Amino acid sequence: MDVQELHDRGLKRRVDMFGREAVDKRIGALGEFGKPLQHIINAYAYGDIWARSALPPATKSLVMIAMMAAAAHPNELRVHLQGAVKNGCRAEEIQEVLLLLAMYCGIPSANEAHRIAVDVLGEPQRA
Amino acid sequence: MDVQELHDRGLKRRVDMFGREAVDKRIGALGEFGKPLQHIINAYAYGDIWARSALPPATKSLVMIAMMAAAAHPNELRVHLQGAVKNGCRAEEIQEVLLLLAMYCGIPSANEAHRIAVDVLGEPQRA
Amino acid sequence: MDVQELHDRGLKRRVDMFGREAVDKRIGALGEFGKPLQHIINAYAYGDIWARSALPPATKSLVMIAMMAAAAHPNELRVHLQGAVKNGCRAEEIQEVLLLLAMYCGIPSANEAHRIAVDVLGEPQRA
Amino acid sequence: MDVQELHDRGLKRRVDMFGREAVDKRIGALGEFGKPLQHIINAYAYGDIWARSALPPATKSLVMIAMMAAAAHPNELRVHLQGAVKNGCRAEEIQEVLLLLAMYCGIPSANEAHRIAVDVLGEPQRA
Amino acid sequence: MDVQELHDRGLKRRVDMFGREAVDKRIGALGEFGKPLQHIINAYAYGDIWARSALPPATKSLVMIAMMAAAAHPNELRVHLQGAVKNGCRAEEIQEVLLLLAMYCGIPSANEAHRIAVDVLGEPQRA
Amino acid sequence: MDVQELHDRGLKRRVDMFGREAVDKRIGALGEFGKPLQHIINAYAYGDIWARSALPPATKSLVMIAMMAAAAHPNELRVHLQGAVKNGCRAEEIQEVLLLLAMYCGIPSANEAHRIAVDVLGEPQRA
Repeated sequence: MDVQELHDRGLKRRVDMFGREAVDKRIGALGEFGKPLQHIINAYAYGDIWARSALPPATKSLVMIAMMAAAAHPNELRVHLQGAVKNGCRAEEIQEVLLLLAMYCGIPSANEAHRIAVDVLGEPQRA
Repeated sequence: MDVQELHDRGLKRRVDMFGREAVDKRIGALGEFGKPLQHIINAYAYGDIWARSALPPATKSLVMIAMMAAAAHPNELRVHLQGAVKNGCRAEEIQEVLLLLAMYCGIPSANEAHRIAVDVLGEPQRA
Repeated sequence: MDVQELHDRGLKRRVDMFGREAVDKRIGALGEFGKPLQHIINAYAYGDIWARSALPPATKSLVMIAMMAAAAHPNELRVHLQGAVKNGCRAEEIQEVLLLLAMYCGIPSANEAHRIAVDVLGEPQRA
Repeated sequence: MDVQELHDRGLKRRVDMFGREAVDKRIGALGEFGKPLQHIINAYAYGDIWARSALPPATKSLVMIAMMAAAAHPNELRVHLQGAVKNGCRAEEIQEVLLLLAMYCGIPSANEAHRIAVDVLGEPQRA
Repeated sequence: MDVQELHDRGLKRRVDMFGREAVDKRIGALGEFGKPLQHIINAYAYGDIWARSALPPATKSLVMIAMMAAAAHPNELRVHLQGAVKNGCRAEEIQEVLLLLAMYCGIPSANEAHRIAVDVLGEPQRA
Repeated sequence: MDVQELHDRGLKRRVDMFGREAVDKRIGALGEFGKPLQHIINAYAYGDIWARSALPPATKSLVMIAMMAAAAHPNELRVHLQGAVKNGCRAEEIQEVLLLLAMYCGIPSANEAHRIAVDVLGEPQRA
């Protein structure tokens, strides 16, 4: 397969997962400087790895949530929480991932991830 | 529920997941000094969090693999790779988690996780 | 002991340490979704581990500051800096922890922790 | 050499690298509490380690960018991106460091570093 | 104060804390290449930061254990566990630090730290 | 360009950098299971990112050493220390990277990196 093809099918998948507007905004924010990174994301991440099909999309989303929360990447965690909602994950499933996180990466990681999840999942925040 | 009950059902689950011998060995290795930690593991991790049922055991195992590999805990990664095999995860599914890891946590994390996975999954290592 | 009792005495300890308002705000912010995590925090962290008494509260606070700064959890570092003040730690003691941090986790970790400490300890910030 | 001399030549180097205003602001922000940390930075980091001359300043800047991005210190990454510009690093060189980061520390680390680099390097951000 | 004096008093403190043989072995293992790093350790860490006296040595040891365990430095954790024993910390105090670690950095960090602590504290390991 | 071409030129570059035997051994160790990861390494890392030419190979090696030491990947640090020697980096240059590491990531990271560097650079270890 040609690398350009890999890139194009990756970009298409990415747009399907997150919406045209969100993807355009992320790509635009990094301008010229970010083009080679966007190529990595489109061609190699979404064109290759996300094209594999051993796991259903919802399971991949839960795996990504676990990975991004454990590695302390809050922006990416937010993106993949949004992807999880789109891929049909229920709040209870996401919650269970974040409770495993509390026990295996500690309470502060779980606190941070909960704050983002509550924001993405849209529950009213009452104090 | 009584805390002792929580502990006992947790220990039972842990033994079901990893086998009596492996659990006894892990508990014994830390002796008296490790008793309060073992209580945390048995009562709170396995008695409470692992008792939740929003996710099937195989999905939990994949989530744990993602989390332990992303947080760079090789010993715990090995334990949960063994649990994944027991919970019926196929090699292709584990591989897909570790390829997402390569893209989102970097090649060195994926290399390390692959070495452990190859060892646990029992593929002959030929050079 | 019943798990509910463990929870209640933990919540009481937490309120004693951080004040009713701060605890209510933290619990409220995560709503329904955060209830199981709050149970972990109240029952297992504050009801069990913080109930142990081998270390005086001020020493526990210094240990927590070291741990949260080393693990790069700025929000939790702030909470435990506030707890340290309440537990009677002097600024010189906190400073010494953060200078060990500079040598053993590097200058950027110490810079970040100093920014939060200066904010919590209330020194006027003059440029 | 006297420690005070080490400090003074370090502070001079730091001012040469980042400008008087930026250094004064950083020192002032941490006030009395931050004095011993500033001594570490001036005397030991800039007075000793940065005084070594096996590597040209531009190479040191690229090394620092790699180190701060890999260790997830966004504030320090920004400071050393500014230092890199001052030391004559070209955007293409910084970009290449951040693309190695994408492959070896993962896409989220590279995304975060790109956002800061685009901001420091002054490219207009169009969405 | 002269930097050489800072170095010499630091080396003396280090030898007092860990014994002549252990320090000589650590210095020797890194040879010529390691001399500037040993200077940092002797002069800046032990000559300056460890010379401060706001915290008693036993508290510093507990803080160091928390920091090294949270930052996943097993070799340094071992060194400071040995220092803690020398500084008079009791096993119960170390245990309490490691139980806070379990809750705030997760079970795998605590497991790893327990393995090293059991080894240093000399409890017979029975399976 | 075809993805297979990207892969082949990447594999060639990798063999040039580390030698046929070392590359074959690394590929063989992960067997069938590791094939997709090896594709990522060959095609995307060495076929694309390492093919860029804004930085000379020796500078890339120093950047990789900084990155792998800061991210605590000892196996990959060893590989890139070997690559650095092959790319003509002098011991003094590597040493200066590791001294920056001591100040900006802390003494334990620098200790670990020094141990590996001394081993790769082949200095006799005398105690």
